[in-house]
Parts: sequence; C-alpha cells; structure tokens
Amino acid sequence: MGFTLDRRLEDSSHLVTRIDDIQVRVAEDSRYVWLLLIPEIVGAEELHDLSDDLRDRLFALATNLGGWMKTAFTADKINIAAIGNLVPQLHLHVVARHRGDAAWPGPIWGHGDPVPLTATDRQSLITSVATFLETGDTG
Amino acid sequence: MGFTLDRRLEDSSHLVTRIDDIQVRVAEDSRYVWLLLIPEIVGAEELHDLSDDLRDRLFALATNLGGWMKTAFTADKINIAAIGNLVPQLHLHVVARHRGDAAWPGPIWGHGDPVPLTATDRQSLITSVATFLETGDTG
Repeated sequence: MGFTLDRRLEDSSHLVTRIDDIQVRVAEDSRYVWLLLIPEIVGAEELHDLSDDLRDRLFALATNLGGWMKTAFTADKINIAAIGNLVPQLHLHVVARHRGDAAWPGPIWGHGDPVPLTATDRQSLITSVATFLETGDTG
Repeated sequence: MGFTLDRRLEDSSHLVTRIDDIQVRVAEDSRYVWLLLIPEIVGAEELHDLSDDLRDRLFALATNLGGWMKTAFTADKINIAAIGNLVPQLHLHVVARHRGDAAWPGPIWGHGDPVPLTATDRQSLITSVATFLETGDTG
C-alpha cells in the first residue's frame, strides 16, 4: 500500500510541490499564510514514527520556509507545530502570524472557520512558495 | 551578556535538567503532562535563529521525549510546537494529550487557566523526566 493523503488534509489544502518525500501544501484559509508539510510515510502519526534523517529534513525545510515567510510576509511570529489531535496523519504546520490576525495571540487551530482564498490569491501564494523552493529567491 | 530565561517561562515551569545547551522544564499545569525545551541562545525567537546543529538536536530531544511520554503517560497524541506569540523567547512545547483532557481536541495554549501541580505530583514528574533522560529507561 502506497501513501494516501488524508482526505481532510487534501480537501483543505493545495499541493505546491514535493521535496523528496515531503509534500509542501498551502492551506485554504485566507486568514493566514499557512503551509503544511506532510511526509509521505504510510502510518506515520507522530514525529517519533519518522527516521532521524527524515525528521531532520522535515524541520530543516520547515525552518527554511519559516525564515522566508517571516520576511516575505512581514510576519510578527512564525508558528511551527505538529498537533494532529483531529487528523492524526502526521502533518507539520508552518504559519506566518501577524499581530491582530484572526486568532492572535492565540493558536490558529480550532479558531473559527476557514475563509477561502480567492483564485488569484491562491495561485499567487502557490507560485511564491514554489519559486522560493526552486530558487531560494525571497523576492 | 549571558542567556537569561524569560521571567514568564521561569515562573510557569520548573527546570529538570540541561542537555548540553537546552533546558528541559516541566510546566506547572496539572491538566497536562507538558514539557518545555529552551535553547540557551541569547535573542533566539524563531527556529531560524538557531544553528542547524542545535535545531537538529532540539527536535531529536523533543522527539525522544515525545516517544517516551506517549508510552509512559499512555497519551493519545503528542503535540510538539514552537508558538511564542505571547512570550517570544524561543521555547518548544512537548505535550502529552489525552482524549477528554481539558482542551481536547483543541490546542492547549490560551485555553483556560493553569491548575497547579501538587508538590508530590510535581516532584514525581520531574523525577520521571530526569530518570528517562539519564537512563533512557521508560519504566
């Protein structure tokens, strides 16, 4: 059995690209710039279900994206979290937070309902993330 | 200037030990088994403020503790998160979650008020964590 993305993650986010065996996705919620990193490992629910190498690569990628997002979206704080209380398939959140955003200073998870992106904003965000990952260009 | 722990982190948690340059602390909240890992790096607020080596060691430690906590405290899920919207000094949460706990399935941050540990429970938890870190013994 190959890896199958949880339907709830699939329905609430959009694939940007894969970096080796990690899916990089954009969450469908215009309230935040919110990425999901999902290792394509069958049955993984906790960080300790990953190999050391994959865990290191996952957090290197999250950190790299977080550093870029802080600058590119003039964020006040980056939140990086593996929660998974509702959707246990392992997924790592990388979120650019701003003072005064919908949930600030609380956590975003479980706070209100997602607000869909416009088609233009969705494509723009996907393109920005893809371009950063391809080129390391933060511009 | 050496590293100084933020007063809010100091007042709400107890030092168990240091693993190299990372403080391992127990949060003063009997609602959850909740650890804090704090790299002693002056000015660090984001994961991208750490060296790659320290970041890898921080998540290796968090993952190791999370794996132990899941078994030792029969947790349903481990939550590992760097949030820091209120206290920007970089601190990583490692929390054992149980179905039906005070905030389940929501995140614990900003949910109600902490409930102090009894002196006995506090010492027992500190001893358990210290023993695991010294011996790797999950018993």
